[in-house]
Amino acid sequence: MTWSPAHPETVFTYGAPQLKFGPGAADEIGHDLGALGATRVLVVTDAGVLATGWPDRVAEGIRESGLEAVVHDSAHVEPTDASLAAAIERARADGPFDGFVAVGGGSSIDTAKAVDLLLTNGGDLMDYVNVPVGAGRAPSRPLAPLVAVPTTTGTGAESTTICVLDVLDLKVKTGISHVRLRPTLAVVDPRLTASQPPGVTASAGMDILCHALESWTARPYTSYERKQPGERVPYCGSNPISDLWAERSMSLLAKAFRRAVRDGSDEDARADMALAATFAGLGFGNAGVHVPHANAYPVAGRVR
Amino acid sequence: MTWSPAHPETVFTYGAPQLKFGPGAADEIGHDLGALGATRVLVVTDAGVLATGWPDRVAEGIRESGLEAVVHDSAHVEPTDASLAAAIERARADGPFDGFVAVGGGSSIDTAKAVDLLLTNGGDLMDYVNVPVGAGRAPSRPLAPLVAVPTTTGTGAESTTICVLDVLDLKVKTGISHVRLRPTLAVVDPRLTASQPPGVTASAGMDILCHALESWTARPYTSYERKQPGERVPYCGSNPISDLWAERSMSLLAKAFRRAVRDGSDEDARADMALAATFAGLGFGNAGVHVPHANAYPVAGRVR
Repeated sequence: MTWSPAHPETVFTYGAPQLKFGPGAADEIGHDLGALGATRVLVVTDAGVLATGWPDRVAEGIRESGLEAVVHDSAHVEPTDASLAAAIERARADGPFDGFVAVGGGSSIDTAKAVDLLLTNGGDLMDYVNVPVGAGRAPSRPLAPLVAVPTTTGTGAESTTICVLDVLDLKVKTGISHVRLRPTLAVVDPRLTASQPPGVTASAGMDILCHALESWTARPYTSYERKQPGERVPYCGSNPISDLWAERSMSLLAKAFRRAVRDGSDEDARADMALAATFAGLGFGNAGVHVPHANAYPVAGRVR
Repeated sequence: MTWSPAHPETVFTYGAPQLKFGPGAADEIGHDLGALGATRVLVVTDAGVLATGWPDRVAEGIRESGLEAVVHDSAHVEPTDASLAAAIERARADGPFDGFVAVGGGSSIDTAKAVDLLLTNGGDLMDYVNVPVGAGRAPSRPLAPLVAVPTTTGTGAESTTICVLDVLDLKVKTGISHVRLRPTLAVVDPRLTASQPPGVTASAGMDILCHALESWTARPYTSYERKQPGERVPYCGSNPISDLWAERSMSLLAKAFRRAVRDGSDEDARADMALAATFAGLGFGNAGVHVPHANAYPVAGRVR
């Protein structure tokens, strides 16, 4: 397929959270939040992840650094407008907070993004949801620091500028997307992914492969018309940097994916899968994804 | 060579500026600074770069976005404690500023880091210089947004957390290093490197190669003793992410270095060299460099 823009785009953008990677990284979050200026922190998770004990362990570590920490299991698997509104309401009632931590999969991370957005910028959720479903309002203020701690090796939500949600009345999957939603710091500690059962490792691994392969085959940024600076979006098309992440992510998958599914206690394979998920997120978080993810949206919107 | 730490490090960190890359990127700086909340901006450059017209063109673009902009040609090639103190004094006299742009090579970018640091955090330059030369004080407040616009394809200063300077009385080259010194946004516009003469392209290209090769061969992060969170430094040793940048940087050099020196008007080669410099900076800005750079410090300290 070819494109012939009259004035081809010449510029691409690249953004990413700061990253801390490796076994033990999750024990240092209190120090990192303190360095970011936080004093009272909300840890957002879901009931399933809460049961692993990790969110409370992270909160305890934050308290040992002299900060306050509150844990909410307010994330709903596949967030909805209703689940996000409830999480925001609960956070408002227990606030104020000047720092956030998400411990979990994409659902917990996206819920924390929405809570951070609404507590720092005010208003209602639908004000910020993408048009035509919502009003597409851009946050006027910076969000409070958000540390994302993924417990599944797949979603890449720790790297992206988007919060995905189902709008129940409309049976549609949509999102809130703005560069200010990107987490400040991603803490990827492979120990937190060790409890994933083989089925989750397999399906989350296919998610990594889709992220890497879709961003690697996404339309190149040069195939679009030249944008004005105010028109730029985080997903700018494939480019030399997103290619780099996608290619290395696929190499890691080729090496570790089968091993991680077959033997969940293979620490090297777990670490490589965590790295593959992070790399794929850093790639597609800038290039974007395409047909498979687009197809998934209306399907997912009808699931419940 | 082998190392046998009693408790090997298990964690590595990775930080980078946001990036905008491509011909035309330098025309959008006013928009980007506005989005970062700046209203009155100091453009730092040196006399040689000022003569190319780019600093004034960047300042004009900032004004067209409704922000104020002042240009200082206060950077000294190979900054010294004296040149930085003079740049800081001049900025204090013309301030306040809530945003900074550096247009130039490593000297302009490092001078802007020092000016931003001192104007936001107060005190004297030597308070912040690395021990034992200075007091090694850490900035207690975030710096104002700094946009780095390199005009040479080599230094990588747009990606690093360090400001390098010569202390004249001591005849020593040292620096200020803190994660808060890393520029907020790197704007890499290959048009700004087109005026580099072949000799500069060649020596700056050797700088890229040294950055890539030294960070690629740096001691791996796992060869160090396990650090406490407060002991972590930006240069954490080679790791899977810095390797990725270094390897791709060297591939780009293999393809473009000879062409860019032979024919400065080869736009593809210029763009590849700009990308190679950026990638090498993203790598060594986290892994660090070693023997060749260490050797250069005492030599450079004696040059003037």
